[in-house]
Amino acid sequence: MSMCQPRFRRAEARDLDAIIALLADDPLGAMRERVSTPTDPAYVTAFTAIDTDPNQLLAVVEDEDGVAGCLQISFIPGLSRLGMWRGQIESVRIASRLRGAGLGRQMIEWAIEQCRALDCQLVQLTSDKSRTDALRFYESLGFVASHEGFKLAL
Amino acid sequence: MSMCQPRFRRAEARDLDAIIALLADDPLGAMRERVSTPTDPAYVTAFTAIDTDPNQLLAVVEDEDGVAGCLQISFIPGLSRLGMWRGQIESVRIASRLRGAGLGRQMIEWAIEQCRALDCQLVQLTSDKSRTDALRFYESLGFVASHEGFKLAL
Repeated sequence: MSMCQPRFRRAEARDLDAIIALLADDPLGAMRERVSTPTDPAYVTAFTAIDTDPNQLLAVVEDEDGVAGCLQISFIPGLSRLGMWRGQIESVRIASRLRGAGLGRQMIEWAIEQCRALDCQLVQLTSDKSRTDALRFYESLGFVASHEGFKLAL
Repeated sequence: MSMCQPRFRRAEARDLDAIIALLADDPLGAMRERVSTPTDPAYVTAFTAIDTDPNQLLAVVEDEDGVAGCLQISFIPGLSRLGMWRGQIESVRIASRLRGAGLGRQMIEWAIEQCRALDCQLVQLTSDKSRTDALRFYESLGFVASHEGFKLAL
């Protein structure tokens, strides 16, 4: 297979198990996700919520072996900065068989283009401080770590 | 006036000029916003986008003198962590006449309750690293600065 021309598209319901497998294939995700047959209904409900929200774009990238990666973009309207829209990238995952092959860069560049096409003036994301490779990766793409990313578990 | 019982409510179109004034009344915001009569149409368009998105909640808090603060919560559906919803807080502003009086804490606690009521399992926000008072404030509310907050201007 070649990732020279990865195919990006909106995720469909038939991709759900492949996306869950990607989310679970990660040191942090392995503790948090539930890979099962049939698919846990919580994921089905969540997929519907994302898919029916016009300001959410859950996307997959495919190669000949199937789904190779996923990401989600949330398009967030706001008043500040003269009514600026933000594109927020979450849940970026790449199949372990393809890590280090440059696919991540293509995925983020594709996501940035989606944000630009919808007139977002800012793209934002947060990355766990323990993912040191990811931090370097986002800096190499021009992102600036100007903010602290605060989380509060409920 | 007393802020012992601030009144929180969903923002309405009639609050728009007061909210813009709050956004501009800040060292960073003063450079970014445009306070004018009539209201800049860009803000009106943005307000409509927020107000018609069921996953956005733009709120104001009032005292006897009018709008005393604002914030926006974005409710973001996701697949990870078994389909967890996140509540994301943005654009928290307090009138300068009321800063330091504890209103900010009441606003964030109110926002957290809105997230909890909609079954969010995580509340997140980013804060500019230059706003050192804000960083301490969010930590005092239990938020953990576990993530880097990356921004890319388009």
